[in-house]
Amino acid sequence: MTDGVNRQFLLAARPEGLIKVSDFTYNEAEIPTPGEGEVLVRNMVVGVEPALRGQMEGLTNYTTGLQLGEVMRAGGAGQVIASNNPNFQVGDMVQGMFGFQDYACIGGEGMMPLAKIPEGTPLEAALYVFGGTGFTAYYGMTEIGLPKAGDAVLVSGAAGAVGSLAGQIARIKGATNVVGIAGSEEKCKWLVEEMGFTGAINYKTDDIDARVKELMPNGCDIFFDNVGGEILDIALDNLAMNARVVICGGISRYEDREGAAGPKNYFSLVYKRARMEGFIIIDNMHRAAEFTEVLAGWINDGSLKYKVDVLEGFENLPQGLINLFTGGNIGKQLIRINDPA
Amino acid sequence: MTDGVNRQFLLAARPEGLIKVSDFTYNEAEIPTPGEGEVLVRNMVVGVEPALRGQMEGLTNYTTGLQLGEVMRAGGAGQVIASNNPNFQVGDMVQGMFGFQDYACIGGEGMMPLAKIPEGTPLEAALYVFGGTGFTAYYGMTEIGLPKAGDAVLVSGAAGAVGSLAGQIARIKGATNVVGIAGSEEKCKWLVEEMGFTGAINYKTDDIDARVKELMPNGCDIFFDNVGGEILDIALDNLAMNARVVICGGISRYEDREGAAGPKNYFSLVYKRARMEGFIIIDNMHRAAEFTEVLAGWINDGSLKYKVDVLEGFENLPQGLINLFTGGNIGKQLIRINDPA
Repeated sequence: MTDGVNRQFLLAARPEGLIKVSDFTYNEAEIPTPGEGEVLVRNMVVGVEPALRGQMEGLTNYTTGLQLGEVMRAGGAGQVIASNNPNFQVGDMVQGMFGFQDYACIGGEGMMPLAKIPEGTPLEAALYVFGGTGFTAYYGMTEIGLPKAGDAVLVSGAAGAVGSLAGQIARIKGATNVVGIAGSEEKCKWLVEEMGFTGAINYKTDDIDARVKELMPNGCDIFFDNVGGEILDIALDNLAMNARVVICGGISRYEDREGAAGPKNYFSLVYKRARMEGFIIIDNMHRAAEFTEVLAGWINDGSLKYKVDVLEGFENLPQGLINLFTGGNIGKQLIRINDPA
Repeated sequence: MTDGVNRQFLLAARPEGLIKVSDFTYNEAEIPTPGEGEVLVRNMVVGVEPALRGQMEGLTNYTTGLQLGEVMRAGGAGQVIASNNPNFQVGDMVQGMFGFQDYACIGGEGMMPLAKIPEGTPLEAALYVFGGTGFTAYYGMTEIGLPKAGDAVLVSGAAGAVGSLAGQIARIKGATNVVGIAGSEEKCKWLVEEMGFTGAINYKTDDIDARVKELMPNGCDIFFDNVGGEILDIALDNLAMNARVVICGGISRYEDREGAAGPKNYFSLVYKRARMEGFIIIDNMHRAAEFTEVLAGWINDGSLKYKVDVLEGFENLPQGLINLFTGGNIGKQLIRINDPA
């Protein structure tokens, strides 16, 4: 980091098709001065997630859309280096929506919460398991998916940040068969050998439908979907009676939102007396303490594992985001941009 | 009816596109003799429903498929004229799956229940409100749709047997705005003037999306769907937060099952934290007495109205079924084939 300079990536273009590095402009600004009630944070690790793509497009379904020329939005973890807020002291480790930049001034109001990271919690864990990503997996699987003993659970995008936790949480809750769908042999091997999935399907090389039928001969009681498209249709065709389809994400839809087909097999919801339900974790962020307590218990007793995939260097911020859509990461994609002061 | 002859319509061909009269063969058989535990029923009024189309196609999603050459399946109401079953006496009025024929022998076992029609209940009501059709509307709206005071409820296929009841039940449960989608001005007028809907949309002449937005400016809390296709997509695009989409039927899908597109807007389930759920009433037929008691209360106090659309004559059985798919009926389509003995 150059002293006195706030490096930034600004949104330069609305993405069409895959996000490109050229959708961002590198910029150098002055380090901002915190206003009343604000703190100045030195951003150290940035976390990216697929939903950021919607904000780049200006969609307002989740939150306010991003304008061209604005600093790219993203969650980050860092350290308070100046404070006009009595709740935060210089030196505190915090997380919030700091964006693709070295420094951010933030008051913690409204949609921009600022949270202290407890001592002893690695920044990576704060940005992943004990943040929106981990809560998404926990809430989506336990409260929408409702796993019970003996369930067969299928997870798409299983080697991603949410999917790899969601599958493990289903196992913890008693599911006996948890199958993940991922995009490489390496990811499939990792799911089974490291993450405790009972099976994995490589969607790039396997006949997905045949493999689902082979690995889940009685159908799936829960399908936890991060992908959409053909995979959602195959899952709908392989539901067990009274199945729950958790719509967590639809990463396949980003490539061609207008032309994306809907799930032709939606009528399986009738044949199988099944339910398909969506959610967004921001509705439940007031339960962060409760979620954190449960997840920390599982992390501490070793029943829940997490993997972060860390790119080093500020210049890799755009690439980290792109990785999510090209299958470039395993686990939570983070970008380390600054060392501690 | 010719004495000593059992007129029948047999399945002659699997339907392609619209059901045609030529998909059936007229046949005359001998009047059957009831076996042990069976009764012989003289079939008087036949009720038809869209799901029969699936059985004509041999689909086994709901029940066993119908074979070519078999008597066309359908529910009916009639009178016991011979009995080898101590539970039924000659003269009892009964309902069951008697099919497209004058006489049926039935024991009431397994998937072919035989139920007495209480004295004083018109056969039409037994075949409609106090049978699978009425229970479908009641269970689907109250237990899947979960209407609450102030809700805005949209119903497709609203002038049909299920839809017209479902909308009224939502009103009884406190919904303040109940809009029906139907296929003619006559049907729309009937929904508002006779059935107590607050609004109606003619899908053949109106801009459906614009009308939904106009009549339900805050979106719909419940969409009760009997149609599928474009109407489902429009409804998904107009959901209120935490909406419930009840998939009751998909009559638009019968025309082109393979080519039918899925709901492109399914991702609204995420944006609106909404749920889409299917059901089949046969799972809940053990609750018939409970459903009947509630529905009879509403019929008796005038809060629930029903309309039957009766074709006269055995020869009109195929046409009665066809009407369901061409918008030919208002309310429950019945065919009266025989007078009391």
